Amino acid sequence: MSHYDFSAQRLFVEAPLAPGLAFVPPAEALNYLLNVLRLREGDAVLVFNGRDGEFLAVIAEATRRSAKLRVERMTRAQSKGADLDYCFAPLKQARLDYMAQKATEMGTGRLVPVITRRTQVRKVNAARLRANAVEAAEQCGILTVPDVLEAVELTDFLAAFPQERLLVFCDEDAAIANPYEALFEKKAQGVSLLIGPEGGFDDAERASIARAPNVVTLSLGPRVLRADTAAVAALAILQAAIGDWRSNAL
Amino acid sequence: MSHYDFSAQRLFVEAPLAPGLAFVPPAEALNYLLNVLRLREGDAVLVFNGRDGEFLAVIAEATRRSAKLRVERMTRAQSKGADLDYCFAPLKQARLDYMAQKATEMGTGRLVPVITRRTQVRKVNAARLRANAVEAAEQCGILTVPDVLEAVELTDFLAAFPQERLLVFCDEDAAIANPYEALFEKKAQGVSLLIGPEGGFDDAERASIARAPNVVTLSLGPRVLRADTAAVAALAILQAAIGDWRSNAL
Repeated sequence: MSHYDFSAQRLFVEAPLAPGLAFVPPAEALNYLLNVLRLREGDAVLVFNGRDGEFLAVIAEATRRSAKLRVERMTRAQSKGADLDYCFAPLKQARLDYMAQKATEMGTGRLVPVITRRTQVRKVNAARLRANAVEAAEQCGILTVPDVLEAVELTDFLAAFPQERLLVFCDEDAAIANPYEALFEKKAQGVSLLIGPEGGFDDAERASIARAPNVVTLSLGPRVLRADTAAVAALAILQAAIGDWRSNAL
Repeated sequence: MSHYDFSAQRLFVEAPLAPGLAFVPPAEALNYLLNVLRLREGDAVLVFNGRDGEFLAVIAEATRRSAKLRVERMTRAQSKGADLDYCFAPLKQARLDYMAQKATEMGTGRLVPVITRRTQVRKVNAARLRANAVEAAEQCGILTVPDVLEAVELTDFLAAFPQERLLVFCDEDAAIANPYEALFEKKAQGVSLLIGPEGGFDDAERASIARAPNVVTLSLGPRVLRADTAAVAALAILQAAIGDWRSNAL
C-alpha cells in the first residue's frame, strides 16, 4: 500500500454516498469540519460510510453555521471487512476506548464483548466503542468500521459458536510454543480471537473453550501483557499467520 | 508462565537489593507506598532494580512521613534483558510515553530514538521515557527495564550499526509478503527493530538502510498503523518469529 496521505481529512458518515449526492452532515461532523478544521467552501474531505466506498466531497453552500457536502468522485472502491471477530472481556472505559481503536487499526470486522467470571466490567457502552472504532478508521484510511455487538456471556458465546469457525484463544497459562506455527495449518471460514479478562479464565471456562470443535490456544509469550497490548499483539500474529498481511487486499 | 498476581505491588528502585538490606526509598516512591497505597509497617511489596532480581520487602520503621524498606527474600532471580533494540523516530510526547510502555511490555532491551528527515520531534526526554518504561515493568512483572539511549541521526545510527546485528526495518512501502517467513531464516546476534516517522522514510534514507549488511524489510500489512500500534505489532511478529515467544525464558 502506497504511503498514506495524512493531510487528507477523512470523515465517516452514515449517509449513502455516490457522485452528485449532497447532504448536510450531522451537527458534530459539521462542527468538526467548519470550526475545528476550519474548512471553507470548495475545500475537500474524503468521506466514507463503510458500505459504498470512499469519495472526495467538497464543502458547498457554506454559511457560518452550516454547509453541505457535495460528493464529487469515488477515490476507493468499498472493500469487504475481514471475517475476523475480536472477542474481549470488557475493561474499564479508558482502556476499552483504546482497545476498540487498536482492534480497528488491525483490521477487525466485529467487536464482541464477552462476559466471563472474572470480568471486571459487565456492561459495555457499545455506542462509545463504535465511536472509537470510527475515529481509528477515519485516521488510518480504513474503509470499513467494525460492528459492535451486544455483550454476551461466555457460555452463550460458546453455545452459539459456529462449528466451522476458528476460535483462537489467548491463554496466558498455555505452554509457550510458536504461535505462528500453531495457526499456520489452520484454514477456516472466519476467525474469532478471544482474549480473557486480566484475571484470566477459570478452569471450568478453560475446559469449555477447549471443547470447541475448531480451537487453537495461543500463548502471547513469557511476559504479562496488558489487555490493550495483548489485543494488538494477538491480532498481529493472526494477521501475519492467516490473515491479510499475506496479500494486498485491504 | 503462571497467572500473574496483580495484587502484589511492584516497585522499581535503584538501590542494591539483597536479603537483610534496608533502605529509605526516594521521596516519590515513599509517597506512593505510604500515601497512595497506604501501606503500613509490616506490609509487603515486591522490589526490583533490573540488576539483582526481585525481592519481597517489608515496610519497617514507619513514621507518618517516612519508612524503610527491609528486604526479606528473593522471589525471582534476575533474568538477562533481551538483546532487542526498539529504534524509533520520536513522536509527540503522549504517544511517546505510550510507546515506551508498550515496547517494555513486549520485552525490549533498549529504546533508541533515531532522527530521520521527516521526524516530527527532534528532542527526546530520555528521563521521561525511562519513567514510562519503569511503570510498565512494575505493572507487568518485568525484571529488566530498558535503557533509553540518546537520540541519534539516522546516518550515524547506520554508520555505527554492527555488521553481525540484524536490522529489521518496517517500511510501509514494502511489498506485503509474509512477515514471519521474512524473519524465520535469520539467525542473528542481537536484533534492532527500526520504525520510521509517520511521514515514512524518504528514498535516500530507504536506500541507505537497504545497504546495511544484515537487513530484513517488513511490511506491517495493508493498513496504515499508528506508530504506537506499529510498535506492538512489529515486536509481536519479531518475538513470535525469532524472539522469546518460542521458549520459557523471561
